[in-house]
Amino acid sequence: LLTLILAESSLETIPEKLWSHPSIVKFAESKGKSPEFILLDRSYHHHVMIRLEESEKRGRPDIVHRSLLIALDSPLNREGLLRVFVHTLNDSVVTVQPETRLPRNYNRFIGLIEQLFQLGSVPPEGETLLKIEKKTLEALLEELDPDRIIGFSQSGIPQTIKETISNLKGKKNICFLIGGFPHGDFSEETRRLFDEEVSIDKEGLDASTVVSRVIYEYEVAYGLPKKRLRR
Amino acid sequence: LLTLILAESSLETIPEKLWSHPSIVKFAESKGKSPEFILLDRSYHHHVMIRLEESEKRGRPDIVHRSLLIALDSPLNREGLLRVFVHTLNDSVVTVQPETRLPRNYNRFIGLIEQLFQLGSVPPEGETLLKIEKKTLEALLEELDPDRIIGFSQSGIPQTIKETISNLKGKKNICFLIGGFPHGDFSEETRRLFDEEVSIDKEGLDASTVVSRVIYEYEVAYGLPKKRLRR
Repeated sequence: LLTLILAESSLETIPEKLWSHPSIVKFAESKGKSPEFILLDRSYHHHVMIRLEESEKRGRPDIVHRSLLIALDSPLNREGLLRVFVHTLNDSVVTVQPETRLPRNYNRFIGLIEQLFQLGSVPPEGETLLKIEKKTLEALLEELDPDRIIGFSQSGIPQTIKETISNLKGKKNICFLIGGFPHGDFSEETRRLFDEEVSIDKEGLDASTVVSRVIYEYEVAYGLPKKRLRR
Repeated sequence: LLTLILAESSLETIPEKLWSHPSIVKFAESKGKSPEFILLDRSYHHHVMIRLEESEKRGRPDIVHRSLLIALDSPLNREGLLRVFVHTLNDSVVTVQPETRLPRNYNRFIGLIEQLFQLGSVPPEGETLLKIEKKTLEALLEELDPDRIIGFSQSGIPQTIKETISNLKGKKNICFLIGGFPHGDFSEETRRLFDEEVSIDKEGLDASTVVSRVIYEYEVAYGLPKKRLRR
């Protein structure tokens, strides 16, 4: 079982201190929603975001969208061998059911996540696919209790994904942490939780690129591509 | 050098026979654009699309968006060893410069591609990053003249990506064709162009998943992950 956590992800509703800013008021009117139920998105709120702390790490729900799509599409997930969580910069945790079929369209994804923040779980009726709770990364990891926690970050030890995964032989419950934010690095608080910090390329890669590659290499290590073709 | 072609991609402006449909007229008004300059998008035009031939393969620019983002982000592309083209269902070909930084935001990507269809190339000033021409897949392949053309499709021979690439040892100019459409299969016309047709999983995978995996495995075959970490 592989657990994938998008950590410190750029996913939040517009913070209260921006609600009264004229450009936010206007944006909220055009969407017909109150600002507290709208996702912060750098594409639309760039100029207002300068007022926020750690602004460069915030307002990028597209990163979570693409990372989740590629994780959920993986054969590993289709085999029921992948668990996915999104931890946010504000210490919320989204639990994603493996059978979730996320909207491919970005605007519909945003609508769904806004509903998630408002209701706590979606869809509103029937089986819950996404739920969100206030929870720190530390608390989440305590619950999951993995054998080994690997953080992927440019400040880590240079090591290929193949090497990283072959070093994990024998471990049954592995957790990979990938930053769900655009620039900068994990906080010190997060880094203290890693057993190992690994850099898989000399340059920063998109979260979705890292997600896709580590899942694929994990599948290869367990012979999954061949197994699935033989069936 | 690896050439990646997203083939028969779901990327087109709204076809003329739909321009006068009331829901399209309304959509065009809300965007403040003439329908001929708006991309067909199943998220918004689903009900009208029933009138179109091969409707199930059309109107999914999000597939091209995610596939291009993950291809351009790859270390292979950053090394200048990847060429990317988008061939569309209507036989247009988009040439993508390797240094292109595509908008991560879907709506901005759509705006850029609509501008591309209108102007023939973007950005309107400075060095061209994307250009579009009327061209068949066959004509594109004749120009590129690859040593070997591999099509990835569920109807192909079951073979892992690793096996596929290891069979290509010694070939210098390889072309991978991946379907840039959601459902169904390549047309017979396209399949006739393949030297080999390969199925890498028993189930259909998203184009972006296939793009990411074949590029990564190609990098591994050439030792790129290690080389880049050593620098």
